[in-house]
Amino acid sequence: MRDHHDDRGIPGYNLGSPEVARSPISIEALDELKKSCLLTDEDVIYLRLSYDVLEDQAENLVAMWRGIIAHHPHLRHYSQDVNTGAPDEEYGARVGKRFAQWVLDTARAEYDQAWLDYQYEIGLRHHRAKKNKTDGAHTTAHIRGRDLIGFAAATVAPLRPYLEKGGHSEQVVNRMLDAWWKSMILQVTLWSQPYMNPGDF
Amino acid sequence: MRDHHDDRGIPGYNLGSPEVARSPISIEALDELKKSCLLTDEDVIYLRLSYDVLEDQAENLVAMWRGIIAHHPHLRHYSQDVNTGAPDEEYGARVGKRFAQWVLDTARAEYDQAWLDYQYEIGLRHHRAKKNKTDGAHTTAHIRGRDLIGFAAATVAPLRPYLEKGGHSEQVVNRMLDAWWKSMILQVTLWSQPYMNPGDF
Repeated sequence: MRDHHDDRGIPGYNLGSPEVARSPISIEALDELKKSCLLTDEDVIYLRLSYDVLEDQAENLVAMWRGIIAHHPHLRHYSQDVNTGAPDEEYGARVGKRFAQWVLDTARAEYDQAWLDYQYEIGLRHHRAKKNKTDGAHTTAHIRGRDLIGFAAATVAPLRPYLEKGGHSEQVVNRMLDAWWKSMILQVTLWSQPYMNPGDF
Repeated sequence: MRDHHDDRGIPGYNLGSPEVARSPISIEALDELKKSCLLTDEDVIYLRLSYDVLEDQAENLVAMWRGIIAHHPHLRHYSQDVNTGAPDEEYGARVGKRFAQWVLDTARAEYDQAWLDYQYEIGLRHHRAKKNKTDGAHTTAHIRGRDLIGFAAATVAPLRPYLEKGGHSEQVVNRMLDAWWKSMILQVTLWSQPYMNPGDF
């Protein structure tokens, strides 16, 4: 898997590939979870509206998020080589490309089986079950569950000025931001599954 | 514990009581987690500003959230008696008073040891480890981790009109709402600890 490149040349990005394992939860369970998150069809409209706004800003967003990570030792060390303590540049480059694609996938808001399966895969890639494997890397072996969930806040909180660049009204920007919060929480919930005791999720 | 009432007559509310177990994580770990959530001293200012705005609306907020829960069978059944399938009214009343107090505690934003300990207690009370015990109830024994985390979105997303009633500028309302999102994610992260595999949190 580590050498997989998708059509866009994003290493390790394999949403929709048969090599991604089936999600442990069904599409029906996902529909239920969307309701727990109050994520509605209206939110999907606003997420998709944000696609055009964010498409050309995805790399800037990743750079901004990485600035936050770099500023905090306990986050920064997740992309450091455990042997040298230095940042793993290749790992960083590969993950960064997937992170930018994640912005677009979030805005696309296509909650089909392939998307659901890939959310479980993303969870595994943060967890000791699979971190480093996709990229053949030697960084810290596990992102703590607390940082996985907590960073959801750091991901969405800085989005407003980026969303404002689309020229939409304040009210529409507010709704796009609401939808991003809901989608972020939906996703991080799915990513948390490998972290949970059997039967607890 | 089920008969504990605090000074305000809130049954089972025991933040700061010696009967609450120590949090498994330290205040230093909480400080780190706040950073993962990008929750800063500025957010604390805006949370505290929201106190006066929300103080008289806490019961209305609880009624609104309960409306969401009642609308969805998979959420509603968490407060139904497993023997009769009927809503457990006494359980609902007790939990509702604590839920209203939670609004005030969130706005107070006092992240001390007593608060940290109580977050772990809140997690346990959603989990099969301790659900029903505080209230001597017989409702569904466990709130699924996915609904615990997912409902964080349903909790904060409807807050804007309530925050707007304080008469603050749109910009200040936006900042109060950002701070609520961050605090909500911080808290649900702490609540998730009993759900996680040993060592994963």
